[in-house]
Amino acid sequence: MTATAFSDDDRHFMRVALSLSKRGLGNVWPNPSVGCVLVSSEGAIVGRGFTKPGGRPHAERVALDEAGDKARNSTAYVTLEPCSHFGKSPPCALGLIESGVKRVVSALEDPDRRVSGKGYKMLRDAGITVETGLYGDEAHRINAGFLSRIVSGRPIITLKLASTIDARSATRSGQSQWITGDIAREYGHLLRANHDAILVGAKTVIVDNPTLTCRIPGREAQSPVRVVLDRNGDVPVSAELFRGAQKVPTWIITSQDKLDEVFEKFGKTGVKVLTAGCKNDHFDLNDVMKRLGEQGLTRVLVESGGNLAADLVHRDLIDRVVHFIAPSLIGAEGKAMIAELGLDHLSDMPRFQRTSVRPVGKDIAITYEKITE
Amino acid sequence: MTATAFSDDDRHFMRVALSLSKRGLGNVWPNPSVGCVLVSSEGAIVGRGFTKPGGRPHAERVALDEAGDKARNSTAYVTLEPCSHFGKSPPCALGLIESGVKRVVSALEDPDRRVSGKGYKMLRDAGITVETGLYGDEAHRINAGFLSRIVSGRPIITLKLASTIDARSATRSGQSQWITGDIAREYGHLLRANHDAILVGAKTVIVDNPTLTCRIPGREAQSPVRVVLDRNGDVPVSAELFRGAQKVPTWIITSQDKLDEVFEKFGKTGVKVLTAGCKNDHFDLNDVMKRLGEQGLTRVLVESGGNLAADLVHRDLIDRVVHFIAPSLIGAEGKAMIAELGLDHLSDMPRFQRTSVRPVGKDIAITYEKITE
Repeated sequence: MTATAFSDDDRHFMRVALSLSKRGLGNVWPNPSVGCVLVSSEGAIVGRGFTKPGGRPHAERVALDEAGDKARNSTAYVTLEPCSHFGKSPPCALGLIESGVKRVVSALEDPDRRVSGKGYKMLRDAGITVETGLYGDEAHRINAGFLSRIVSGRPIITLKLASTIDARSATRSGQSQWITGDIAREYGHLLRANHDAILVGAKTVIVDNPTLTCRIPGREAQSPVRVVLDRNGDVPVSAELFRGAQKVPTWIITSQDKLDEVFEKFGKTGVKVLTAGCKNDHFDLNDVMKRLGEQGLTRVLVESGGNLAADLVHRDLIDRVVHFIAPSLIGAEGKAMIAELGLDHLSDMPRFQRTSVRPVGKDIAITYEKITE
Repeated sequence: MTATAFSDDDRHFMRVALSLSKRGLGNVWPNPSVGCVLVSSEGAIVGRGFTKPGGRPHAERVALDEAGDKARNSTAYVTLEPCSHFGKSPPCALGLIESGVKRVVSALEDPDRRVSGKGYKMLRDAGITVETGLYGDEAHRINAGFLSRIVSGRPIITLKLASTIDARSATRSGQSQWITGDIAREYGHLLRANHDAILVGAKTVIVDNPTLTCRIPGREAQSPVRVVLDRNGDVPVSAELFRGAQKVPTWIITSQDKLDEVFEKFGKTGVKVLTAGCKNDHFDLNDVMKRLGEQGLTRVLVESGGNLAADLVHRDLIDRVVHFIAPSLIGAEGKAMIAELGLDHLSDMPRFQRTSVRPVGKDIAITYEKITE
């Protein structure tokens, strides 16, 4: 198959679909977050959709319902291959066929073996023109969490860091409220909203006693799962986090040894207790991530202290970094935002690539991604 | 006097003059770096100038010479009040009068008491229209070093920092070459070119043995003065720095106690030996800056290790910060780019304001300025 030459219109409408697809992030796990735009033969948008909370209805269904009869002879721009299997609802490929869509432009093939290529085949068999690969990289970036879980069995991990210019996250006495300003903190809540879960260590719960909810007005319902790594069963049941566990899903991951004890402690709180493997008094973090993947999580935001952050970096488990830098200094006796990495040579440094820089009030947010060759 | 309403043309030509004025920075100390544009009554630029290396000829003289007869009836845009005193050359105000310039637009009054207001008066007495204050803040920013020396007797101090995301400037074993990439290092040489001097501590000379010259092709002649703070006379005469001391001015600042010894050691190298006050086995850094001001320096770039950087921050002597961030991590056992500041509460943090962010290859450069209320 030769590469398709996409038109400027195609590019435009796919960008709209990509933009829509981001709106489901954090709300649709374990599903992908898809965007769909239906465009009439006159070039008007007649339907728009993105994956709804919980993962259903799918983006195509939403767009088709909006378009109604106008879907006939339209072109559908979808950010992921339409599904072809009968699950909780009929397949989207069938919906597109039944609505009389005549052309489908897709950004990315679905790596899910139940779907991969079969959605395209179902469409083509029905006489629909199918063109693929438009803005595939961008679609991949947006659904990196879903794709990682399908391919590697684990969610993607975003490390959130907030520090002074000299990368200190607190004074030596532990004072950290507030280094960054209101706007950066609000942006931090937005990060929570578009992740499936927030991961912290037991120490953060014990020392900072955070609530870890999304406190953006109107988006409180998008608070992600809160996951605490507590190998020794140290976190107190009185912690702020657990007070809201009936409303906001809250999980504790502990060791097999401590399972009974932790289960007993949190029995009536609504907290879910999981286990993960341990080695030499430390969690096997690869196993932790596998467990989170098994639970369906695709996007996990780490808001931990410097030790867990360093452990995750050391295990090469950080896919993305969001670093908020406040224009101030604490000095070397302050808390390091990343603890020891056991590194002797510059050639061993974990390296990332910068993906964006944006001013957030007086602070700045720099995002990085793991370098993948 | 009511505020002048400047035209769009005025703004445009003053921006050209401001842009020109930056070109002398680093080469004109102890003079200000001024830009001048002469514009004919038809709106054409007929002369352009900026302060030449060493401070003479002045920008106005250069522009007038370029314009020749075309200066008659022109408007002169100058970024600083034209000088009115007879020094090494006749005053620029007289030059403008004699050339038949009919209007002068100036950004900023010269705080030098020999000039302040007198240049404007001389022009007005000759019947020239004088309007002032156009882009005064920007002109002030550009000549902040000159103005600081006039007003406070000391140069402005820019702290250059280069680090990983986690603000480490070297591994625990001291490996630092190279954390940042080629483009950031080249930008660093540009910083050297537009500063009058580079300041380092003895430890940097002993450990890193740097040359501290400007190695941008074609700008080698713009290498700034190299100043080493060496209270105890520790730096070896064999250091790389001193080999070029006949060509590139190199100064050592030591304590009164060690003056004879250091003078003896560096007698034949071309190195200039100065002293500054000490207290409790530390330099009095305010006195160091005063000494540098006495020598005529207006813009000093600090490329030190974390200890001198922290001491300067602690003494509130850092006016600007340029922070290069490489997209990598070293971890907490690496060298901190800023050492201890002795700070307990966030309310005591030194605070800056961000003035620019720019990508420099794979790295990023963020600049800050001291907050002045």
